[in-house]
Amino acid sequence: MGQSYRVAILGATGAVGTELLELLDQRNFPVSELKLLASPRSAGSTVMFQGESLTIEAVNESSFNNVDIVLASAGGSISKQWVKDIVAAGAVMIDNSSAFRMQPDVPLVVPEVNPEAAAAHQGVIANPNCTTILMSVAVYPLHQVLPIRRIVASTYQSASGAGARAMEEVKKQSIAILQGQEPKAEILPYPLAFNLFPHNSKLEASGYCEEELKMVNETRKIFGAPDLRITATCVRVPVLRAHSEAINLEFDSPFAVEKARELLIQAPGVQLVEDWDANYFPMPIDASGKDDVLVGRIRQDISNPNGLELWLCGDQIRKGAALNAIQIAELLIEKNLLKPALVANS
Amino acid sequence: MGQSYRVAILGATGAVGTELLELLDQRNFPVSELKLLASPRSAGSTVMFQGESLTIEAVNESSFNNVDIVLASAGGSISKQWVKDIVAAGAVMIDNSSAFRMQPDVPLVVPEVNPEAAAAHQGVIANPNCTTILMSVAVYPLHQVLPIRRIVASTYQSASGAGARAMEEVKKQSIAILQGQEPKAEILPYPLAFNLFPHNSKLEASGYCEEELKMVNETRKIFGAPDLRITATCVRVPVLRAHSEAINLEFDSPFAVEKARELLIQAPGVQLVEDWDANYFPMPIDASGKDDVLVGRIRQDISNPNGLELWLCGDQIRKGAALNAIQIAELLIEKNLLKPALVANS
Repeated sequence: MGQSYRVAILGATGAVGTELLELLDQRNFPVSELKLLASPRSAGSTVMFQGESLTIEAVNESSFNNVDIVLASAGGSISKQWVKDIVAAGAVMIDNSSAFRMQPDVPLVVPEVNPEAAAAHQGVIANPNCTTILMSVAVYPLHQVLPIRRIVASTYQSASGAGARAMEEVKKQSIAILQGQEPKAEILPYPLAFNLFPHNSKLEASGYCEEELKMVNETRKIFGAPDLRITATCVRVPVLRAHSEAINLEFDSPFAVEKARELLIQAPGVQLVEDWDANYFPMPIDASGKDDVLVGRIRQDISNPNGLELWLCGDQIRKGAALNAIQIAELLIEKNLLKPALVANS
Repeated sequence: MGQSYRVAILGATGAVGTELLELLDQRNFPVSELKLLASPRSAGSTVMFQGESLTIEAVNESSFNNVDIVLASAGGSISKQWVKDIVAAGAVMIDNSSAFRMQPDVPLVVPEVNPEAAAAHQGVIANPNCTTILMSVAVYPLHQVLPIRRIVASTYQSASGAGARAMEEVKKQSIAILQGQEPKAEILPYPLAFNLFPHNSKLEASGYCEEELKMVNETRKIFGAPDLRITATCVRVPVLRAHSEAINLEFDSPFAVEKARELLIQAPGVQLVEDWDANYFPMPIDASGKDDVLVGRIRQDISNPNGLELWLCGDQIRKGAALNAIQIAELLIEKNLLKPALVANS
């Protein structure tokens, strides 16, 4: 019997936290002890895990003593608030927020793409943005063979990206509209039911929103390709769960569609979904609850001899968040990387 | 008092036919006589127009006698079936179907873009595809100043593009899902409620679907730019009405965002919708029922110094179909073009 580990989930009651719990169970993650941490507001409620009732605890300074792995999904400010305590306690934090992703000393890891980056961690490993993870898994197998020079991405992001309450809001708005009433927007800035709008993350001076710049900057860091040119338009659509992306890729020379297809059939974390006769390609309802990123409609770009078009759907909560975090934890265990790397002069 | 005209609507009971009727009224189109034509199935039902009850007639060989303008929106095969009778009767057919759009002797007209093309008609003028019209109106003002070299488009197309019954189907599917039942897909190939999928038009050998190739070929014809490179990914989304498009434009040299904004503020048929502080940009619910194409989020493409990104929403039934057809009819009247152009040796 292998070793098992003491795991804490910080933000155990959110959409990603719930999925983390489910995945720890489904994947038989070697848990010796599981601590569920959340804000004082959620403390005291109970959650079932592998037949046991676990009580959610309010997070405090001593929460991370005797913990090996902290899976954090409570937002950037909470991650920043507790990171020192986590690292001081000797645990590794795998953080779902954007707080540390672009810090040079924090590895940003998609296990199918850059597992080697995890080895350099100093106690914190960042889990990338959901749209970035899904795109990375799908296009990295091509990038390895012929470097991608430019990506033009358009996203179709589900309500789940804004959390469980946004998913509920879309349902309520749908009912209101179907009953001839005005939909109310309380979680999201505008009604999303039967509507869509550009992603509502903060706009930067460039006109790009944070979500789009995450796709740009995080993909570069994960691929180790600082010069990779990327532009993105991120859009929220009235889908409950699973994001979709239309991806236009440019290389320095032609990339045969058949070659791309062969590579993606073999690629880890990818499922090729293409039935050209039935006009059947990846759809968010089919990607929901699946581990793999569904990829299809691989086409030679008719506007560019060195271009490829592809279409993908992936479960934003699963591979786009919780699953990727757990895969990072599994990688740390497998490669014996739970202790931080030694850093000269630190 | 100006002249008035005898108008027939072929396909008067569909989503576009209904909108044509509404627009003839709203725009005070100079109608002296209005004939509503449809399949024998719909014949006999009545429709109100300007306080009068009009009976829908089954179309036949003599339907077009004493008609000046036929607004056809009953699908390509119906248009092909009746085009000879329409032209023989001396009427001009403004056709919403794709049947004649790429025929060299048939002008393909967006009045804001290429009104001059209408003059060469031989009895038939084609109304372009909806996504093409919306994109053309939004980007032609830029193309006139600095020719566009390449377009990468991703669409977010509403159910209305598949007709009134598809709109009803999405509502029914939504109710089913909200009640925990399986949604039924009868009009569209897959459930669209809380889901989305690549456009279900016929796939060509290139892997592009017909809808995407319409955007490529029709835009080239409308712009008179046969070498304009265009690629598109067309996607159906669970929006009832109004299409959205993420458009990436490439020029031979930089196009200042401020210049683009100035041009689009003045452009006919365009409304600039940009509130950067409120993160408020075009949304399909705001474009529904509007004549203008709403354009916003104009950004310098950070992946390409010669690139611009923009986002648009437009009413697919209105400017994307019925309104454009009526604007063509108004153009014919204004320019005295109801009689076909004389063609040498014909």
